[in-house]
Amino acid sequence: MKHFTSVSQFTKQEIFTLLEMAEALKENPLPFSTQLFAANLFFESSTRTKMSFTVAERKLGMEVLDFHQDSSSVTKGETLYDTAKTFEAIGADMLVIRHESDDWIQELQHGISIPILNAGAGKAEHPTQCMLDLLTIYQEFGSFQNLNVTIVGDIKHSRVAKSNADSLQRLGARVFFSAAEGFVDHALPYPYISIDEAVQTSDVVMLLRIQHERHRDEGKFTNYLERYGLTKEREQQMLPHAIIMHPAPVNRGVEIDASLVECNRSRIFKQMNNGVYIRMALIKKILGEWGKLNEVTSEKRQKAIINI
Amino acid sequence: MKHFTSVSQFTKQEIFTLLEMAEALKENPLPFSTQLFAANLFFESSTRTKMSFTVAERKLGMEVLDFHQDSSSVTKGETLYDTAKTFEAIGADMLVIRHESDDWIQELQHGISIPILNAGAGKAEHPTQCMLDLLTIYQEFGSFQNLNVTIVGDIKHSRVAKSNADSLQRLGARVFFSAAEGFVDHALPYPYISIDEAVQTSDVVMLLRIQHERHRDEGKFTNYLERYGLTKEREQQMLPHAIIMHPAPVNRGVEIDASLVECNRSRIFKQMNNGVYIRMALIKKILGEWGKLNEVTSEKRQKAIINI
Amino acid sequence: MKHFTSVSQFTKQEIFTLLEMAEALKENPLPFSTQLFAANLFFESSTRTKMSFTVAERKLGMEVLDFHQDSSSVTKGETLYDTAKTFEAIGADMLVIRHESDDWIQELQHGISIPILNAGAGKAEHPTQCMLDLLTIYQEFGSFQNLNVTIVGDIKHSRVAKSNADSLQRLGARVFFSAAEGFVDHALPYPYISIDEAVQTSDVVMLLRIQHERHRDEGKFTNYLERYGLTKEREQQMLPHAIIMHPAPVNRGVEIDASLVECNRSRIFKQMNNGVYIRMALIKKILGEWGKLNEVTSEKRQKAIINI
Repeated sequence: MKHFTSVSQFTKQEIFTLLEMAEALKENPLPFSTQLFAANLFFESSTRTKMSFTVAERKLGMEVLDFHQDSSSVTKGETLYDTAKTFEAIGADMLVIRHESDDWIQELQHGISIPILNAGAGKAEHPTQCMLDLLTIYQEFGSFQNLNVTIVGDIKHSRVAKSNADSLQRLGARVFFSAAEGFVDHALPYPYISIDEAVQTSDVVMLLRIQHERHRDEGKFTNYLERYGLTKEREQQMLPHAIIMHPAPVNRGVEIDASLVECNRSRIFKQMNNGVYIRMALIKKILGEWGKLNEVTSEKRQKAIINI
Repeated sequence: MKHFTSVSQFTKQEIFTLLEMAEALKENPLPFSTQLFAANLFFESSTRTKMSFTVAERKLGMEVLDFHQDSSSVTKGETLYDTAKTFEAIGADMLVIRHESDDWIQELQHGISIPILNAGAGKAEHPTQCMLDLLTIYQEFGSFQNLNVTIVGDIKHSRVAKSNADSLQRLGARVFFSAAEGFVDHALPYPYISIDEAVQTSDVVMLLRIQHERHRDEGKFTNYLERYGLTKEREQQMLPHAIIMHPAPVNRGVEIDASLVECNRSRIFKQMNNGVYIRMALIKKILGEWGKLNEVTSEKRQKAIINI
Repeated sequence: MKHFTSVSQFTKQEIFTLLEMAEALKENPLPFSTQLFAANLFFESSTRTKMSFTVAERKLGMEVLDFHQDSSSVTKGETLYDTAKTFEAIGADMLVIRHESDDWIQELQHGISIPILNAGAGKAEHPTQCMLDLLTIYQEFGSFQNLNVTIVGDIKHSRVAKSNADSLQRLGARVFFSAAEGFVDHALPYPYISIDEAVQTSDVVMLLRIQHERHRDEGKFTNYLERYGLTKEREQQMLPHAIIMHPAPVNRGVEIDASLVECNRSRIFKQMNNGVYIRMALIKKILGEWGKLNEVTSEKRQKAIINI
């Protein structure tokens, strides 16, 4: 692959191989033998994705260049393209980018000569989240075949709903949506069910975050939990083996009752943990395909050390 | 210890052991043989404490995860607890936290399964500052027995006054306070003396910072130096062997004459230097007690390297 | 050298030696065998210079302390001097500083006992930019003798114009300026020519950035490209072998037509790449002269590793 922009670019076999790689890397991190630089360019706030990429990179032995737009030349008007090009010029071997634009990837993909990993593109895509969600479900059920997965929440503005739904369906799961009125996206070909039906029929209840920061009208959130969210009562009606997922940050008491965040069914922190290993797998795959893992021979490096 | 929240949790013997460890680590840093991640979560401004923890962690060979709340999910409403839990989930082996709340430690200590080090809790505690102050006095006098130590400044709003006073008294020192009227804390059982008496009788004059950022009414600072601070004239009256301490940042010309900051008696920059080594000792102690220093066997690591 | 403040402190021979060192380090990074800490203190926005220093430091195996003034004690009123002194106290072996003041170097150079590298001083100096520009020209032409170099743009407010002009002239080049009326600096002894003359006669057209952030009156920028900048038409008139340089960030469409930024003549991204290697050379030189590269013997380090 040239850049990692969407899970849709992988075949089913490639997805399974990545899930297995992630499991293997968890046991044995295998740091690269050469000094490779990752630049993490986050133009939107992030704790989980950014820190998880950082941990993944460091476990692989990569150098991490940490970019802060507020103290960067972006404040002088430098564009995303020129910023990315700059990191390429100073020696980055890979770019991890999150940006509020839906289509920044299209802007960048022809001018940049190092691999780019999409860490979030506006409301369009968040493919590493999708991959870590797949890993979490795969660990739980060993397969996606015939699983009922309901994605609950702000489908319309979510950058994970569509890619998760498409990938899950492709892998054999049955996907449903559940959403408050303003959050329905009629363009997507998945059936809508109520939250009450969802808890009774789903193997996976995958909650989305209410993105207060992308909405202005807060009126729609009145009694949100009782009307559309996962209450304690609804959790009681879930299938015995069913699990709860959420990409986080969680609005405790909004889309989910606070007490359920760490309940037995919850895989929320497990998802975060999986994020590290699936990102390691993705980085390893893309750097391998670009030939970056063999660029500096150990001989050359040995020579450097001897000459010190 | 489960978490490091206050110097009061240590026995006298433990304190002395830590002071000796710090001295030893200064000579011989002994980096850990396994890859361990420290997450530094500073929710309040810091140069010294944060950078000093960073240096301590790197000297011990730890990975450092640097958190910036302004570009984190805290901007989306994520709580301190969920932020801490996230770092635990993505692989942090230890959390260093500074937060403006006085009692964030109580909120966190039961839900988090990795050691937490208190790097400042509102106006309540700043125990690593206390430990580095103890190290500085110990280096100077070899003992705390019968030393006169006067803590001068905003006792009421200080997070170091109380813990320093209690620890010093427990170790055998005689502790006095000296404060302008609005800065007196009548709840603490230490005698108040004037700054003029303090300079004539103290082995250690420990100045506190006037925390402009925690006060609104600046009127009380008029002629502060002449009335309550350490002027050049007062420094002349200090005992021949007496030393000046200050946790910094210093308001030059407010609590201390600018020319005294780097005078012969000043241990202000020595304190900062000691901060690195005492933090190394604390990290080593807590990670050791949690069994983290033996988690990954060298054999397993060796295997990983061979397999690359 | 004590500190690196200006290219003018180097002899011609020293400049050539550094250019050769940079070329050699590009092939063979030669990381230091001891743990040395660099503190990068940027009080003004930067992407290129800061990240390029970071890459240079990591390629040399240095630890990097990353300072963010907005979350530092500078917000409590701590001065640059005390901030620098703090980093020295906690173990920094070297400071890299950018600050908006023209003469911060004078303030610091007598109180600080570790080497300081100037990464930008107000409108006065930006000597690492000057060095990377020299490297880029040297790589292209193998010599500076009799080259025609025209520096185009806001000469008056530029921190690179003067130092570049002086260094280039000293090395044998013929230097010209080209500037819009408000950008002329009559104090500097170089002839002014029009942009149209510049493109026809120069071996190097070195554009400067219009520093919107330092100007208030934007009226002067109307039709700037057509009147004073490098248009596609003007590029056609350049000598066959002539090159385009720019320190970046570029205002695409203001001082240069957007399509020329990555044209064949452009060395803009090459300059950035060179910035890493010339900074490595400067760091190596200054740390070597301060005796820092031999401070910790490998024997002592070996002992530490055995004792773990």
